[in-house]
Amino acid sequence: MASGEDDLIARYFRPLATDPGALGLVDDAALLKSSGDDLVVTTDAIIEGVHFLADDPPDTIARKALRVNLSDIAAKGAVPAGFVLTLALRDAKEDWLAPFARALGEDAAVFNCPVLGGDTVSTPGPVMISITAFGRVPPGRMVRRTSARSSDLIAVTGTIGDAAMGLHLLKGQGDGLDLPARDFLIQRYRVPQPRNALAIAIRDHASAAMDVSDGLAGDLTKLCAASGVSAAVNLADVPLSVAAQELIARGHSSVEAAVSGGDDYEILCTIPENRWDSFAAAAHRADIRVSAIGRIAAGADAPRFLDAAGQPVVLKRLSYSHF
Amino acid sequence: MASGEDDLIARYFRPLATDPGALGLVDDAALLKSSGDDLVVTTDAIIEGVHFLADDPPDTIARKALRVNLSDIAAKGAVPAGFVLTLALRDAKEDWLAPFARALGEDAAVFNCPVLGGDTVSTPGPVMISITAFGRVPPGRMVRRTSARSSDLIAVTGTIGDAAMGLHLLKGQGDGLDLPARDFLIQRYRVPQPRNALAIAIRDHASAAMDVSDGLAGDLTKLCAASGVSAAVNLADVPLSVAAQELIARGHSSVEAAVSGGDDYEILCTIPENRWDSFAAAAHRADIRVSAIGRIAAGADAPRFLDAAGQPVVLKRLSYSHF
Repeated sequence: MASGEDDLIARYFRPLATDPGALGLVDDAALLKSSGDDLVVTTDAIIEGVHFLADDPPDTIARKALRVNLSDIAAKGAVPAGFVLTLALRDAKEDWLAPFARALGEDAAVFNCPVLGGDTVSTPGPVMISITAFGRVPPGRMVRRTSARSSDLIAVTGTIGDAAMGLHLLKGQGDGLDLPARDFLIQRYRVPQPRNALAIAIRDHASAAMDVSDGLAGDLTKLCAASGVSAAVNLADVPLSVAAQELIARGHSSVEAAVSGGDDYEILCTIPENRWDSFAAAAHRADIRVSAIGRIAAGADAPRFLDAAGQPVVLKRLSYSHF
Repeated sequence: MASGEDDLIARYFRPLATDPGALGLVDDAALLKSSGDDLVVTTDAIIEGVHFLADDPPDTIARKALRVNLSDIAAKGAVPAGFVLTLALRDAKEDWLAPFARALGEDAAVFNCPVLGGDTVSTPGPVMISITAFGRVPPGRMVRRTSARSSDLIAVTGTIGDAAMGLHLLKGQGDGLDLPARDFLIQRYRVPQPRNALAIAIRDHASAAMDVSDGLAGDLTKLCAASGVSAAVNLADVPLSVAAQELIARGHSSVEAAVSGGDDYEILCTIPENRWDSFAAAAHRADIRVSAIGRIAAGADAPRFLDAAGQPVVLKRLSYSHF
């Protein structure tokens, strides 16, 4: 009796739908029970050939699709509550769908963000996965982009630029790295590490936050514009992985490329100076590296990026943009 | 400073984002404030060449993208609370985006379902619009598919089969209709009429409900399976528009095609007999046609479709399916 679409859902996705709100994926809609919390809602899509490569492993595609949304939830200081997905496929092949669904289920469990529902459609074009994810915050506590204040410290999690370098490596550009370093950068492109373990610390200590998805320089520019402030960033303080440093040392990349590349999915936030120690301690407890890279300044000028001598560096581009 | 993507959002979508929860579309996420209600979440995508035609007018594409989701919200007895959209475009052309955004904003206002956020991405493939919509219901009051009971009356809103016939006309199949009848059927394909005005009556009187999107016969089969019941439908009672009746009379379509065609976006619901008069009165007040087409029966057999003589009709197919 089941149609191809229903069969596909039953086979690959119903086993993941263990949350009561998913209603076993047999209804028209999912249910988010009233909890008294505000609900943070984010939606991000990834498209074959644009956000991932056609020959990326299906398990990494699944993880990326969910994690780019989890990253937004974390940056807003929210705790994951679940997600719905739209999956547009050319065909329904077992050897792609099985590892895709398995990895999606694993990440849903690891990040405690259950699948609640979705829509599976056929497309004659590239594979597309669009996810809408939900997070809960106590009323009024969502962390905004608009509330950075002059003299706040600017912090980022993890390391910056790895994913953009990984993509360049996948495209066959620049190399000379040993295999582990190469694999590390490629994995940083394929599988972001959203910082959900830091969400409560962000909520408790950050004056403003966003996730870094299009490039640190452009994203900081957006945060500053939204907050009506300026900033100064010391490029020497931007945290780089060992592999990224090595690629830069070999002349195949640059700090400028690192801060304007996309796909970091780290958190950019501003921390009032008197909260820094508490924030850093919380990050330490969560085992997440945080680095102070500069300071918010008064004014409406675009953020300045300074070299080791304190001289402004002009970036050729700030971030990745569609269109 | 704005990138192409930011510029596109600012130009076409920010003017629509008048709801406080949209945060002016300048943050990573939208905010659904705690209200004490349960939240119904539905997601439906439409793809060029699959759910709409490449030369469909952009305003009808926008309306369809939103309305297929509004239809789910209505069927669950919920009141619209807003939506987020992912828009995957090959390019950002003014003459497509301007009417698309204008129509989306008009429908958001008409159905009181504000745009809360979204993601705009470039694709080398077909245009795709994925919408996740939210509705509010008092705690525990979402109308399920799983709760139809033996002897309940089976009701549908509006008329059935128009959209599938409209699609056939657009594809150049069967005709002989006068222009107004032809336009009516095509418009029923392009612009669904979600029955949100009936949502409270559904919540108050229906034992189970779903929207009819893949074909009445297949969707009733799903509802019965989810509820663990069977059903008998009198095909002569299935409501048909004048245009559909005319197309059938000319031999270009059939009642069987009407009940297995997709894209109706009407509500299929089951009403306990003692609630029928109240339900019909509420539908009358909402100016929405409702028709009783049969009755739920005990057992696990697939629903039976009976001709005017009470004889079972074997349907060649029950509904549209991807894959």
